[in-house]
Amino acid sequence: MSGKIRFDGRSFDELRKTTFERNFLKYPEGSVLITQGSTKVIVTASVLESVPRFLVDTGTGWITAEYSMLPRATQTRNQREPYRGRAVEIQRLIGRSLRAAFNYERLGERTIKVDCDVIQADGGTRCASITGAFIAVFDAINYLYNQQLIYEFPNYKVLAAISLGIKDDQILLDLNYNEDSKVDVDFNLVMNEDSEIIELQGTAEGATFSKKKLAEIIELGEKGILELIKIQKKELNI
Amino acid sequence: MSGKIRFDGRSFDELRKTTFERNFLKYPEGSVLITQGSTKVIVTASVLESVPRFLVDTGTGWITAEYSMLPRATQTRNQREPYRGRAVEIQRLIGRSLRAAFNYERLGERTIKVDCDVIQADGGTRCASITGAFIAVFDAINYLYNQQLIYEFPNYKVLAAISLGIKDDQILLDLNYNEDSKVDVDFNLVMNEDSEIIELQGTAEGATFSKKKLAEIIELGEKGILELIKIQKKELNI
Amino acid sequence: MSGKIRFDGRSFDELRKTTFERNFLKYPEGSVLITQGSTKVIVTASVLESVPRFLVDTGTGWITAEYSMLPRATQTRNQREPYRGRAVEIQRLIGRSLRAAFNYERLGERTIKVDCDVIQADGGTRCASITGAFIAVFDAINYLYNQQLIYEFPNYKVLAAISLGIKDDQILLDLNYNEDSKVDVDFNLVMNEDSEIIELQGTAEGATFSKKKLAEIIELGEKGILELIKIQKKELNI
Amino acid sequence: MSGKIRFDGRSFDELRKTTFERNFLKYPEGSVLITQGSTKVIVTASVLESVPRFLVDTGTGWITAEYSMLPRATQTRNQREPYRGRAVEIQRLIGRSLRAAFNYERLGERTIKVDCDVIQADGGTRCASITGAFIAVFDAINYLYNQQLIYEFPNYKVLAAISLGIKDDQILLDLNYNEDSKVDVDFNLVMNEDSEIIELQGTAEGATFSKKKLAEIIELGEKGILELIKIQKKELNI
Amino acid sequence: MSGKIRFDGRSFDELRKTTFERNFLKYPEGSVLITQGSTKVIVTASVLESVPRFLVDTGTGWITAEYSMLPRATQTRNQREPYRGRAVEIQRLIGRSLRAAFNYERLGERTIKVDCDVIQADGGTRCASITGAFIAVFDAINYLYNQQLIYEFPNYKVLAAISLGIKDDQILLDLNYNEDSKVDVDFNLVMNEDSEIIELQGTAEGATFSKKKLAEIIELGEKGILELIKIQKKELNI
Amino acid sequence: MSGKIRFDGRSFDELRKTTFERNFLKYPEGSVLITQGSTKVIVTASVLESVPRFLVDTGTGWITAEYSMLPRATQTRNQREPYRGRAVEIQRLIGRSLRAAFNYERLGERTIKVDCDVIQADGGTRCASITGAFIAVFDAINYLYNQQLIYEFPNYKVLAAISLGIKDDQILLDLNYNEDSKVDVDFNLVMNEDSEIIELQGTAEGATFSKKKLAEIIELGEKGILELIKIQKKELNI
Repeated sequence: MSGKIRFDGRSFDELRKTTFERNFLKYPEGSVLITQGSTKVIVTASVLESVPRFLVDTGTGWITAEYSMLPRATQTRNQREPYRGRAVEIQRLIGRSLRAAFNYERLGERTIKVDCDVIQADGGTRCASITGAFIAVFDAINYLYNQQLIYEFPNYKVLAAISLGIKDDQILLDLNYNEDSKVDVDFNLVMNEDSEIIELQGTAEGATFSKKKLAEIIELGEKGILELIKIQKKELNI
Repeated sequence: MSGKIRFDGRSFDELRKTTFERNFLKYPEGSVLITQGSTKVIVTASVLESVPRFLVDTGTGWITAEYSMLPRATQTRNQREPYRGRAVEIQRLIGRSLRAAFNYERLGERTIKVDCDVIQADGGTRCASITGAFIAVFDAINYLYNQQLIYEFPNYKVLAAISLGIKDDQILLDLNYNEDSKVDVDFNLVMNEDSEIIELQGTAEGATFSKKKLAEIIELGEKGILELIKIQKKELNI
Repeated sequence: MSGKIRFDGRSFDELRKTTFERNFLKYPEGSVLITQGSTKVIVTASVLESVPRFLVDTGTGWITAEYSMLPRATQTRNQREPYRGRAVEIQRLIGRSLRAAFNYERLGERTIKVDCDVIQADGGTRCASITGAFIAVFDAINYLYNQQLIYEFPNYKVLAAISLGIKDDQILLDLNYNEDSKVDVDFNLVMNEDSEIIELQGTAEGATFSKKKLAEIIELGEKGILELIKIQKKELNI
Repeated sequence: MSGKIRFDGRSFDELRKTTFERNFLKYPEGSVLITQGSTKVIVTASVLESVPRFLVDTGTGWITAEYSMLPRATQTRNQREPYRGRAVEIQRLIGRSLRAAFNYERLGERTIKVDCDVIQADGGTRCASITGAFIAVFDAINYLYNQQLIYEFPNYKVLAAISLGIKDDQILLDLNYNEDSKVDVDFNLVMNEDSEIIELQGTAEGATFSKKKLAEIIELGEKGILELIKIQKKELNI
Repeated sequence: MSGKIRFDGRSFDELRKTTFERNFLKYPEGSVLITQGSTKVIVTASVLESVPRFLVDTGTGWITAEYSMLPRATQTRNQREPYRGRAVEIQRLIGRSLRAAFNYERLGERTIKVDCDVIQADGGTRCASITGAFIAVFDAINYLYNQQLIYEFPNYKVLAAISLGIKDDQILLDLNYNEDSKVDVDFNLVMNEDSEIIELQGTAEGATFSKKKLAEIIELGEKGILELIKIQKKELNI
Repeated sequence: MSGKIRFDGRSFDELRKTTFERNFLKYPEGSVLITQGSTKVIVTASVLESVPRFLVDTGTGWITAEYSMLPRATQTRNQREPYRGRAVEIQRLIGRSLRAAFNYERLGERTIKVDCDVIQADGGTRCASITGAFIAVFDAINYLYNQQLIYEFPNYKVLAAISLGIKDDQILLDLNYNEDSKVDVDFNLVMNEDSEIIELQGTAEGATFSKKKLAEIIELGEKGILELIKIQKKELNI
């Protein structure tokens, strides 16, 4: 069924065009505008000279995230209500993923605060946020390193995230909003350059999926993520 | 390593003792106290004669959930702050799972509101909430049926949820709090009586897992869930 | 008129069946499930190693309380809105009563935080909370004493609380919800084992009462409270 | 001990000077500035053409109240935080008392909203609010009557409220702030012109009181309230 | 057009009767009731022995303000919602104006907190608040000086504020509520005794104004402000 | 003094480079990215088929605005706290200005909601928001017209806004952040293509200004605004 063409002309296993505009803003230590199809997210990484209470006096650092949308990022306008349920769930996921990408303990007692602000939402915004955030955090750490605020660049493994869905038994990679609203099952996969899984969320809204389908999903997701990581690496020249 | 004994004497693939005290409270249309080891959750299912705005005048019903903890359900006291991030994430999961279990569209234009109140938290509270909620919602629907408010019992598939973890490459089923705080990777699996997956969340806090390990996790989770479903069915006499 | 039988079969001066399930939860320093008829309240007493700001560096302790209801403790579901007016009024009453029962100044600079969570509400929940809280706080202090965190058990006088009402000139002891919603005047009395009054609230919703009636109310309330204190003392073996 | 002189020169059973400035503000249907010693409260009564949801379509009216303090009504400045616990408790008391004074059911489907704003607080502010609110509500009802929005003036009984305290076994009438902060037991009594009790609150902060003392308190409170009612009646010319 | 008479009988360039009741309240360090026509504002100035975070350890002081209205200061009752948009805008203006009037840096590390509570609103409440606040802050500083908490009275220039409007090309001074709701353009001017402008806000709701008109507005506003300052000086005997 | 060069090389009366990226986002009916120097604001105009309560059933429309900043639009990160005082003040100004630009009554009973989200803040963000909003609202009205939702394009006058400051007696046009933080007096001027003033705010933080200076400010501001309007007209081809 690989010949099947989607509404936007992509084949089932094809990513949307993904670009990064690095150093998109002038003040943050790291920032990027990630574009995936019509989805656009401004991701900034800010260095804060403080850590959450449970880390005070431990000498180790932290990475955390906030996620929000402009009111008119979507087809109809949403109210500005920060920290609604869905946003909280997403920003916890972004934070966990980044902490799995970088050895944040070696940042000294400081926090890298990631802000993901979706300015145009056409599906996959949480995944775009994670994929973009890797770039922004990398640059913020680079800033720390170049400013000699840390003397060793912490270990990291490049990671990216991708959404997938099942529609009438057909798996689709990298859903746009229209597809996302129609699939039976919805997946978000976060994986690193060594094909290790960091996070996997599979959600069936009024449907189910089999163990066999799950395995196929992982295979296709891995393919997409490794493509994204290639783009990230080229962008970062690493 | 299957002979390895856990601190509480269980083998790696052994559930904690699970009991249901059905009709635990006198006012709700459905209610249950679910006990899994030391974890205790009061789950109620309330019939509300209204639906969310997007369903008004559609003739179909809805199931939704709230999740909270008593301040001293845990080893140290927590503040009462409803709708914190973690609670929101959990109650969305509970709602989705129940909507996958029952054909809620056939409830008429009414909502079954599930309230999960953890009175003692020793790990696995979101899974216990889902497993218990199946019972409470079943009883609330039974109430509607017996009161002749609906004339057909909607289709359903029994489901349950279980947590799993990986600690030093060893998979563990049904984590208690002590185990949960020590595993490298943390899974929550929601599955129905036909072994169809409704929800899968795999989260690595500072670690990763391979595709092969994921397959093993699903196998062991399925075993645990089918055991739980057997207990649920016996309790409901179905 | 003492022969008059109430709907639940009690005579006008008869308490509902009252039981205590001591150490109901495993984590709190003191905890009890108090049942009075169909009213059920989980009361926990948590030892906090801090005091309100006005007591810092005074060396004396504090007892304070929070009161809440599960959403479906009642016949119809209530929203979760902590700290609504009525709850605040009640938790202030509970705190004052407990501070009158125990010489809290001798606890060292720590707070005993009482949490009263009503899981089933059939009238008299504030009184049940106070009566149960005496047990929970006693056990929390006992914990401090046994752990040698205090070297002397502070002075105390056992106290209990009871509701009363006047309906068509007839005084009733220990109202259930149905009675409570119908009486003309509503009383809550908190009294200790020496028949000293700690708190008295008499509220007429659209009615009034005479000085003579007030004296009769106090007499009957005293009788009920002394019966409750007998049960408490037996439970605590003091 | 009746000869004992208080700091402000009053004998134990003597009210502070009480005055009413009726129609204190120009917009509200009823308004009064009540002064008791240094305590000053602006009380307004606003006619709203709506009722709480539970009264819609019943044809009966409602009286309710809000209570607040200017930030610098007190010796040190308080934050503006409306609806704190204490304020809620007080405004519920004010509302109940006024509903016991007037046959509010005969107001038609409208609400009289009482606002009590303390501009100077020297003890007894809740009692001053109630005593003043009788005047303001009376005038608001008069407005309805004069505007022929109601055709019969509803029945009423004049009421007033007074605080009392016990200090070293001596009962004191109408406490100022300094006395209020020192008494062992604190009473608020609301009573009408026929000496019927509407509300009685007796609160011992770290102390207790006997049944005999309670009877004396009621006697002295009645004396004070009847004096206040005489002033109210003269003011209203009824 | 100076002969034109307004509804309240004033000519276009005539102030409403303005009076100050100094030391209106007994607890604040400075307080005044300012009356301008039917507009009445209680202004208090409280000395707080703390400063905002950005001034800690700088040795300099601060002046800041809060502004609120009693719910029934207006023709119809408003909800109590502190810190709504309009109130915030006004209290920022009041704070800036007072900081321009007094050399607040010489107050030592303390804050003078101004509270403006409008008890009757008939137009010009923000201007009345500023004009009154000069008196209250002056008295609070006098208190500091008399208590020898500061040894030099800080420099100041007396200031006042006035509203103006344009209606059908006619400029009006000191608008009451009725006029304010009808003008095309609305001005607030804050000016000191040396005719220096501290703040100027000109707002056209659905209209515009020319540069020439602006100059005339300033002239007329200056005239009104200098009259107010004369009254202030007489009141303060400076 | 016109030869004086500012830090960024501009003369005192020189605007920063201003560009508009029209139709910046794909979902809103109107949208623009306005760039003035390093200040960048995304402005969207959304058509809502509803009006505020006070306009229901009047047949007339409304224009209103919200203003916010991304957390890292500034040199140090700010918390996400919508509707803080400053933001409210600014969004009220934006709304008033746009309502003065367009005959919003002719939009039918619908609201154009303007969202100004500052993504990079280097001074003058409220003015950039207004200047950009003219473009976005124009395009949203064009959408209504092209969709034949309105049959006549409402009257309008192009407007723009500019900031000015006085530093050591020297007037500066179009302040960047560095200049804004150093000026003694701060102006915001909103003016239309006919040189009519819509809004004027002059604020002295710890300073004052004379009537003569005010006149010079207006002159210079007019010059800047007319330049901006020329750019707007070219962009809109009107």
